Amino acid sequence: LAALADSLPNEKISLGADRDADIAIVANPPPGALAALPNLAFVQSAWAGVDGLLADPALPPVPLARLVDPSLAAQMAEAAAAHVLALHRQAPAYAAQAVQGLWRQLDQPPASARRIGFLGYGELARASANLLQNIGFQVDAWSRSDIVVNLLPLTAQTRGVLGAATFARMKRGAAIVNLARGAHLVEADLLAALADGTLSHAILDVFETEPLPPVHPFWRHPQITVLPHVAAITDPVSASAFIAANIARFRNGQPLQGLVNRQAGY
Amino acid sequence: LAALADSLPNEKISLGADRDADIAIVANPPPGALAALPNLAFVQSAWAGVDGLLADPALPPVPLARLVDPSLAAQMAEAAAAHVLALHRQAPAYAAQAVQGLWRQLDQPPASARRIGFLGYGELARASANLLQNIGFQVDAWSRSDIVVNLLPLTAQTRGVLGAATFARMKRGAAIVNLARGAHLVEADLLAALADGTLSHAILDVFETEPLPPVHPFWRHPQITVLPHVAAITDPVSASAFIAANIARFRNGQPLQGLVNRQAGY
Repeated sequence: LAALADSLPNEKISLGADRDADIAIVANPPPGALAALPNLAFVQSAWAGVDGLLADPALPPVPLARLVDPSLAAQMAEAAAAHVLALHRQAPAYAAQAVQGLWRQLDQPPASARRIGFLGYGELARASANLLQNIGFQVDAWSRSDIVVNLLPLTAQTRGVLGAATFARMKRGAAIVNLARGAHLVEADLLAALADGTLSHAILDVFETEPLPPVHPFWRHPQITVLPHVAAITDPVSASAFIAANIARFRNGQPLQGLVNRQAGY
Repeated sequence: LAALADSLPNEKISLGADRDADIAIVANPPPGALAALPNLAFVQSAWAGVDGLLADPALPPVPLARLVDPSLAAQMAEAAAAHVLALHRQAPAYAAQAVQGLWRQLDQPPASARRIGFLGYGELARASANLLQNIGFQVDAWSRSDIVVNLLPLTAQTRGVLGAATFARMKRGAAIVNLARGAHLVEADLLAALADGTLSHAILDVFETEPLPPVHPFWRHPQITVLPHVAAITDPVSASAFIAANIARFRNGQPLQGLVNRQAGY
């Protein structure tokens, strides 16, 4: 709120549902909350992903913009690089050996021999792909890759894309990194693919149910690394700068950045 | 041997101690083995580190060159990036949380707010520092860094450099990555520094005794990641190309690359 107020000195900003508001800045409001604002003319998401907002059947038909923030893209690229390098350098296998006190050197291809595929190629994926290319990886078509990074928006078309049919088209023993939404993944299909060697490992930052329940089988699975949705967190200062600029565009009748196409779902 | 023979079509190459040889290509021969070669005129190491050779009191006073191989530098940079990113993104803490099924988001600074220090600034360290800068980290003076990467040569002056006095000058809670030699580290000082919070974590690729004995306390220590000396492995093809070029220089009386300064110890 302080960062927003600094960025928007000429706007009155209130916390919570203010019936006088014509602009709503939201993350994941409860369904119906936006429909209760009679003067609403513009909704600015504080997140890059707007699947939660679009799932609200009462979402008013006003312009909706998602967050396009270089800080988010930079964080996502760091997370993708950390996870891809961990898989590339076989961190899970060496961790398993360490539990046994086992000194064994595994064959190690160079990054230039690893193909990293992306599902999705928006701002976040492009920043991640550029960084991985700078590190020396091949970044190309996802289908036969060694490591697949998912950064798709969640839409009716992409729900469940990380499932048995996709895994079957990947290189045998490939790994996946899911940095987008939990509903992209069919959890039972992942467990089966890890068990039969179709996939070797999964690094998951997002889940169908968050927080992931303490009894969920993913937590202690030796082929799954669980992270509590930390790949890219909205930074108050850089997000406020984007939001303030977009609100100025709205007030001046200029085209909005990050305008959501409701048909496409992102 | 096949890669060397391909690179050196005009040389007679034998495996083992050939008394007719005037050039020895070695990794870690037993002490005294080189002194038994009466015609020895040049020793080419197949490794970047020559501390083992220089520790042989009977090492003949002929030119000694270490391996300078872009493939080694690229591998080392990948290893350094993988380990620094794992520490930066708090992989050890999230792994510990996963064992408990604990969903907790930790504060995450961006790479641009992390200072990575290097001990050593030769070919391997420069390649690693360049890659880390490309990823977005600050790379600067080591003493107050968040993460210190050791790539020093092992000499009388650097033995034990990763000890209590050095740790005390680092930022409290910093982490170390040792990719050089086990004897750089004072093992008891590391255990004490981890226990009292001076350091938060150590990623170790090298050890005083290798293989690390299965009962060694480092294996299952929650603040130590053990790797079986895999950061950079000599690649036969690229190493042979360097060695063949250096042997051609030797035959033609030209200056050698990677010539070791015995006084300096590297």
